[in-house]
Amino acid sequence: MGKSIWVASLIVVAFGLAINVPLPDTVYVSISFAILAGVVTWKTLPRLAMTFVNARVSGVDVLKPDRPVIPEAMGFPTAVVYLIAMFCFIPFPFIDWFDGQARLVHEDNPMIGTFPYHKLGQILSAILAIQSMVLLGFADDILDVRWRYKVWFPAVASIPLLIFYYTNFGVTYVVLPLQLRPYVGDLVDLGPFYYLYMVMLVIFCTHTINILAGINGIEAGQSLIIALSVIINDLLFMFNNPDRESLEAHLFSLYFMLPFAGVTFALLTQNWFPARVFVGDTYCYFAGITFAVVGILGHFSKTLVLFFIPQIFNFLYSCPQLFRFVDCPRHRMPRLDSETKKLRCSTVIIKPNNSIRGKLGYLFLKFLYLLGLLKVFKRGENGRILECNNLTIINLVLARFGPMSEVHTTRMIMGIQVLSSLFAFFIRYKLVQYVY
Amino acid sequence: MGKSIWVASLIVVAFGLAINVPLPDTVYVSISFAILAGVVTWKTLPRLAMTFVNARVSGVDVLKPDRPVIPEAMGFPTAVVYLIAMFCFIPFPFIDWFDGQARLVHEDNPMIGTFPYHKLGQILSAILAIQSMVLLGFADDILDVRWRYKVWFPAVASIPLLIFYYTNFGVTYVVLPLQLRPYVGDLVDLGPFYYLYMVMLVIFCTHTINILAGINGIEAGQSLIIALSVIINDLLFMFNNPDRESLEAHLFSLYFMLPFAGVTFALLTQNWFPARVFVGDTYCYFAGITFAVVGILGHFSKTLVLFFIPQIFNFLYSCPQLFRFVDCPRHRMPRLDSETKKLRCSTVIIKPNNSIRGKLGYLFLKFLYLLGLLKVFKRGENGRILECNNLTIINLVLARFGPMSEVHTTRMIMGIQVLSSLFAFFIRYKLVQYVY
Repeated sequence: MGKSIWVASLIVVAFGLAINVPLPDTVYVSISFAILAGVVTWKTLPRLAMTFVNARVSGVDVLKPDRPVIPEAMGFPTAVVYLIAMFCFIPFPFIDWFDGQARLVHEDNPMIGTFPYHKLGQILSAILAIQSMVLLGFADDILDVRWRYKVWFPAVASIPLLIFYYTNFGVTYVVLPLQLRPYVGDLVDLGPFYYLYMVMLVIFCTHTINILAGINGIEAGQSLIIALSVIINDLLFMFNNPDRESLEAHLFSLYFMLPFAGVTFALLTQNWFPARVFVGDTYCYFAGITFAVVGILGHFSKTLVLFFIPQIFNFLYSCPQLFRFVDCPRHRMPRLDSETKKLRCSTVIIKPNNSIRGKLGYLFLKFLYLLGLLKVFKRGENGRILECNNLTIINLVLARFGPMSEVHTTRMIMGIQVLSSLFAFFIRYKLVQYVY
Repeated sequence: MGKSIWVASLIVVAFGLAINVPLPDTVYVSISFAILAGVVTWKTLPRLAMTFVNARVSGVDVLKPDRPVIPEAMGFPTAVVYLIAMFCFIPFPFIDWFDGQARLVHEDNPMIGTFPYHKLGQILSAILAIQSMVLLGFADDILDVRWRYKVWFPAVASIPLLIFYYTNFGVTYVVLPLQLRPYVGDLVDLGPFYYLYMVMLVIFCTHTINILAGINGIEAGQSLIIALSVIINDLLFMFNNPDRESLEAHLFSLYFMLPFAGVTFALLTQNWFPARVFVGDTYCYFAGITFAVVGILGHFSKTLVLFFIPQIFNFLYSCPQLFRFVDCPRHRMPRLDSETKKLRCSTVIIKPNNSIRGKLGYLFLKFLYLLGLLKVFKRGENGRILECNNLTIINLVLARFGPMSEVHTTRMIMGIQVLSSLFAFFIRYKLVQYVY
């Protein structure tokens, strides 16, 4: 188990204590749920391992010399524990509206007319969206759905969220950057395009975690760091925030992120090198939609995107292969050097291709090479690139700094993720004043 | 495809038109969704068949001479289509609260303060409960969970429902029968036991459909008949009903039952003898929880239970085997007579067992025999029962009226279900006046 993860968690806890904010009681309840859900996940996963292997929901860990078969889709029980925890958590934010007998009082309670049903609806629709994605993710793990179909899964799962947004806020305007305001005004109403933006955000968050995958601990690891970043950001808003609306939005985010961090941490202990379980597409989808949900309903989607810098980079870097401008092998994960037991980046052979698509693809590669973001392994006549690393951040790291052991690679990517989060905070709290 | 099903459906449509009630517009929207969801399911299932078989989510139809392998768990895509339809339906009951631009108007709309967020929450929590059960049902189909665990699945899935009930109604009293009122009063507050009652109802509805299973078309067939019964009952309440509360409760039920009937009908066309797909535990759970949800949130759980008479009988009849008072083979489905291609009831060998449990079991069997509800195949000394039919309604029907073809058996059980529904209506609308 990566000590760095423990250290990071401790830092967050210490940070939480240090800021010394009198947090609302519900946050402590949520922290308790997070710990409980984490412990239950941690206890449950090893027990379910054989059930999954027997049901052939398993995979081969090809980056180990002995290629062990380990259970797949363990993000599924993780997500189920999370969902149960969230179900049970639902009444707590509304505890003030119940009397001593823990029942909604009907006449003599002055708060009765004010019961925030829209808040309840918000929590329900958020859980519904997350659960939809877990359902589709598990189906994907079992049925191995093609990319052309599954790329739309998050759009389906986001329907309850959008419907709730539509019935509840209906706010579709965005605040413009200072530089644009003289020309367009302070606000611009995006109308239906705002819903398109939300769908794109959900699709993006869900799939980018699934793309940055392939070595032990990387899916759960990056998700944990993003979750902790969101939690820190939320806690910053607890501090001397006079705006009740924004306070509640970040409370909402905390309620979802704390238990998520709890179960993710438990999953990570099993998935960390050498992995005893795989997390599966289920987990990646579950993590992605959970982030998207809190970003959208917590009204901090732009800040959220900042925490996805490595994922955005990985996505953009992958584009030439994802959209087939450059050949894309079935798997782009690194390969194991059987002698040194270290990972090397996997490579792709660039076949001469005179179509427009092929020429554009080659242009991309040359551009990446000029930026120092490509390692060339073989050149042909005129220095033409014939073989280079596959276009993922993992391969790039291995091309630059490898060969490395698998655990070392994961740690390095985690380090990049942490640095990106720090940079994101810098942008959000320092640079932002020049724009908004 | 069973013509009787078509006829039954037509009767319902004719009935709907005949009662000539000016139904609310949303009911017509719901009917449109039902038809659309049915068509999508009908188109989708055959396309997914190979995907499921390739992913080894398949089973052998052992009651056919050639024992074909056909896709299992097709209730999963059926339920997903249903859920998507329900997601998209969510805004319609609230359409009055939106302005021409289809957005919640913020100040000048007099209805704004009255937006029924609790109704929205009700729909969301109902969908959440149904979706939870689909998730667990699919997991059960894939992982083959043991009974001792899966018996509690519906309890888990009902959490969102109970939580919503708790935050919203909190009504835990029941009206007592006339005969008891002089002694106990008109109402009795069950308190926490009411929640226990709801959990039991969900567990009961969910598993009883799963127990009355094993031949082509029976799971979807019985569910369709129950759904149509609920729909007819709801329509009766649309008629000259001065009580706004009860009208809304039955509208709520219609919104969920109409699309359910639509997708179930589509599934049944594929699952009817000779089945091209199996429905899986996913479907049985999905159907059961959908009934339980509308029964609970529509406040007609007692009427609902009346529509489950064959299931209740089957459950009670199965109890000696389910609770191991009598030996219970792994499968209790009928067996195929390879010569006549007809079904015969399967049997169980009664081993001499002198434990209290064994003696009680034998007493049960003798009691059933006296009632004419047991066919004895082999007797030992002193007329002791050595072999009898397995204790399910399907085997009982086959023991009494068999051997029969599979499709004939399904039709007969469907006939029993229809007669039971008629009897239920008789109890609900005639006999009830002597009790309430």
